[in-house]
Amino acid sequence: MNDNVVNRDGENHLRRRSLLAAAGVLGLTGGAVAVTRGEPARAAAAVTKKITIYAENLPGGLIGYGLTRGGATVPGPILEMYEGDTLEITLVNTTTQRLSIHPHGVDYSTESDGSPFNDSFNAPGETRTYTWRSHEMTTVAGRRFMPGSAGYWHYHDHALGTDHGTGGLAKGLYGALIVRRRGDVLPDKQITVVFNDMLINNRTAPNTPMFEANLGQRVEWIAIGHGSLFHTFHLHAHRWADNRTGMLEGPSDPSLVIDNKDLNPGSAFGFQVLAGEAVGPGAWMYHCHVQSHSDTGMAGIFLVRNADGTMPPGAQEAIDRFQGHQHKAASSAAAATATAPTHVHGGTGS
Amino acid sequence: MNDNVVNRDGENHLRRRSLLAAAGVLGLTGGAVAVTRGEPARAAAAVTKKITIYAENLPGGLIGYGLTRGGATVPGPILEMYEGDTLEITLVNTTTQRLSIHPHGVDYSTESDGSPFNDSFNAPGETRTYTWRSHEMTTVAGRRFMPGSAGYWHYHDHALGTDHGTGGLAKGLYGALIVRRRGDVLPDKQITVVFNDMLINNRTAPNTPMFEANLGQRVEWIAIGHGSLFHTFHLHAHRWADNRTGMLEGPSDPSLVIDNKDLNPGSAFGFQVLAGEAVGPGAWMYHCHVQSHSDTGMAGIFLVRNADGTMPPGAQEAIDRFQGHQHKAASSAAAATATAPTHVHGGTGS
Amino acid sequence: MNDNVVNRDGENHLRRRSLLAAAGVLGLTGGAVAVTRGEPARAAAAVTKKITIYAENLPGGLIGYGLTRGGATVPGPILEMYEGDTLEITLVNTTTQRLSIHPHGVDYSTESDGSPFNDSFNAPGETRTYTWRSHEMTTVAGRRFMPGSAGYWHYHDHALGTDHGTGGLAKGLYGALIVRRRGDVLPDKQITVVFNDMLINNRTAPNTPMFEANLGQRVEWIAIGHGSLFHTFHLHAHRWADNRTGMLEGPSDPSLVIDNKDLNPGSAFGFQVLAGEAVGPGAWMYHCHVQSHSDTGMAGIFLVRNADGTMPPGAQEAIDRFQGHQHKAASSAAAATATAPTHVHGGTGS
Repeated sequence: MNDNVVNRDGENHLRRRSLLAAAGVLGLTGGAVAVTRGEPARAAAAVTKKITIYAENLPGGLIGYGLTRGGATVPGPILEMYEGDTLEITLVNTTTQRLSIHPHGVDYSTESDGSPFNDSFNAPGETRTYTWRSHEMTTVAGRRFMPGSAGYWHYHDHALGTDHGTGGLAKGLYGALIVRRRGDVLPDKQITVVFNDMLINNRTAPNTPMFEANLGQRVEWIAIGHGSLFHTFHLHAHRWADNRTGMLEGPSDPSLVIDNKDLNPGSAFGFQVLAGEAVGPGAWMYHCHVQSHSDTGMAGIFLVRNADGTMPPGAQEAIDRFQGHQHKAASSAAAATATAPTHVHGGTGS
Repeated sequence: MNDNVVNRDGENHLRRRSLLAAAGVLGLTGGAVAVTRGEPARAAAAVTKKITIYAENLPGGLIGYGLTRGGATVPGPILEMYEGDTLEITLVNTTTQRLSIHPHGVDYSTESDGSPFNDSFNAPGETRTYTWRSHEMTTVAGRRFMPGSAGYWHYHDHALGTDHGTGGLAKGLYGALIVRRRGDVLPDKQITVVFNDMLINNRTAPNTPMFEANLGQRVEWIAIGHGSLFHTFHLHAHRWADNRTGMLEGPSDPSLVIDNKDLNPGSAFGFQVLAGEAVGPGAWMYHCHVQSHSDTGMAGIFLVRNADGTMPPGAQEAIDRFQGHQHKAASSAAAATATAPTHVHGGTGS
Repeated sequence: MNDNVVNRDGENHLRRRSLLAAAGVLGLTGGAVAVTRGEPARAAAAVTKKITIYAENLPGGLIGYGLTRGGATVPGPILEMYEGDTLEITLVNTTTQRLSIHPHGVDYSTESDGSPFNDSFNAPGETRTYTWRSHEMTTVAGRRFMPGSAGYWHYHDHALGTDHGTGGLAKGLYGALIVRRRGDVLPDKQITVVFNDMLINNRTAPNTPMFEANLGQRVEWIAIGHGSLFHTFHLHAHRWADNRTGMLEGPSDPSLVIDNKDLNPGSAFGFQVLAGEAVGPGAWMYHCHVQSHSDTGMAGIFLVRNADGTMPPGAQEAIDRFQGHQHKAASSAAAATATAPTHVHGGTGS
């Protein structure tokens, strides 16, 4: 795998353009979401945003989505919209294989389903437009509300290899999709982490992405599951509410607060943390908590730097240990993953 | 498998008598739940309803529950009650094997546990009565409330084959049980979908049930997991709140909104959608999102017709594609399911 | 396995000292949490509590945590604190292997991470102090709240066998950690139940713990998942809200009410039931609802005695059946667990 594709230190994820549909209205300048931390978003009325996405072959047999020709990554770009917005996506298939883009959570007619079942895909070399709409909650006879589109969703191929896109998913055709409710708190930085069979963002330790933030920055995680295995996502020293925003509405919000959550195929969830809140800076692990998975490479680093961006004591040593010593598969764990693809790296035992 | 047992187009599920315990009080006429869409239920005081359920052998080695002699189906009938109601179930075992009926969520004494552990089962040919009660929430020292019985539950055999009913579950002895809170919004149509090892309602694609509704109808899904494998339930182009009703209480309801949810053995959940809301009519897929499971047959069709019941453009073509082309197992996916029973149908590759 | 380690009838779990950080302030007398059932806790300001935990070898190749020398158990002691409290844990490693203690949910700096990655572990024979802090929710720009530490968490080894503690978990180095919000309802009794690969508290049926309570007692369950397999926890005849407390805040609390929940590696949840509420006393089963797991030994008994502590009719007979007849693996279920460690006991078929 090539660092031009997925930067080892994860910076490309954090710097990656987050495509907010209402970006123009918000005055975003095309880079990371530009907000004052903790400030609610001030968005105007619903907008329609037209974008082009390129599906491209990448080194190492991967295929990715990108917002520019030659700019594909694994995972693909984070796409964002507010409830009520529409995204018109022109997907350019630069490969020689059938593929598509299928979203979760948003509204689309059968032509934009992204499934061969509905004859909705790009033939090799074909360009095709998919339209994703969204809506706010609507009342039900004055009693309850049908939910709107807001959520931490995702998009992925649904046509390469099988009618369910199993081949496309294996190669990296996936990314995060966020639909916000107006007024939602916006983050400083964003991270997409995809547990895809025994890989994280199609990498294995110690080459998994290292995500970075400075102490106190509001970091938004979008976690996505793919493939055919079950997983649990765990982040050290941080926690979140298991609800739509990851935050509590107040003292009577009954939501569970967790730091470990099932992350199974087709599911996604998101949350925001203040990097190092109440724990301080340092190199913190995120990993699958299925023991046979973490032992064989499903782990990575969330590096929380000092507030001024300098390295905190001990962090470089932890990173060095991770490079050289971690993730030797325990023989006792191997039995339980006999059916899983093995991605054991050559680290020496600790 | 026989269309008298499980109608291929799923109509028997949608038309099936939903047994609301308070049916007499509500003036229901014995067919589908008769309500004005979106209207809250107006129910009288708690009632006791006595019913007879027949456990019967079915073609293809299946065993089902039914409300009439000769009327067993897989899944069994949807049973419903309001919090406070009681169901007295006389189970007639017409088979030559030990079996039982065990409910989730409701109240029962050890004699109605449905487990050999509590000596609560029907011997071959035996008739036995099980009593299921329910209750409303109760206050806890003025601070919080112990939950009532309301929920999307299920019932199943707990005695055939093993003391946990593994044999009965494999053969089809399961069904949905709904306990409503007074005032809950009632649906127009109801669907039971059971992920049971590698099968959906004990069928595999393309013979999985096709559920039908007209555009705008309020359709209630009850999803149940059984067997020994993990699954995720995904429905295209529709979403729901991950809470008791699938709807939001209002803008401060923190519930996650999802379109993909873990559906593991012994679990059940339910939700209501407005068929085709914000997306229009069409043939929409529901499937397990574990790639090796969808690729080998865990997928089906939710056909949303036009509001007048006619077929929308493209829907028949999609159905035809589903019949002939779908669900060829990808060789890359096969490894991960080596331990799972294989139910690959003979569809040609797409 | 030795009854000094894990008492077969589970009484040691129920009687085990629950270490409430604010115990002195609350006037607890060192035994079970002393509260009037249903009464909210009245706790004073945040406190710092210093304790010593011993990691010790146990019969049968197990290793456990204990609050006294020679007092280690599997699971370890239930540790409790209120939001704002601090626990200073001096861990004495009496074994010849590297090990640690790593908590979920609470606040700790990298030195207390309990991971080799952060050079935070006890060498063989070493004593080391770990500090766990906690905090209340904090407001976010006047709109929402970053969650506090309250939750049903757990702690475990993160260093024995592999850098993720896979060996320590397999041997029993795990326990429950509860962080309460001031005012939370306190229980009469507490139960820790750990699904660890194919074992419950490192035991298999019929030697799994039998937990006991009298009718109407408020019993708090803390369920924890470990290992490399997926599980679902089911309790017969009782249910709980799937939220932070297991209770509802009121009629508009949207929480799901459930009696079956995924219990996968690294996850924990807790809830309180009134023993036998609305169902009466009796021997009730708890078990993994994955059929191949319950059939091969992942089941146990929750014995609800009469309010005066006497045995209810039929309970002893059920216990006797459980000892002799249960959990013969069905051959049909065996295929699905071919990759799992097998822990089949020698019970005769039923």
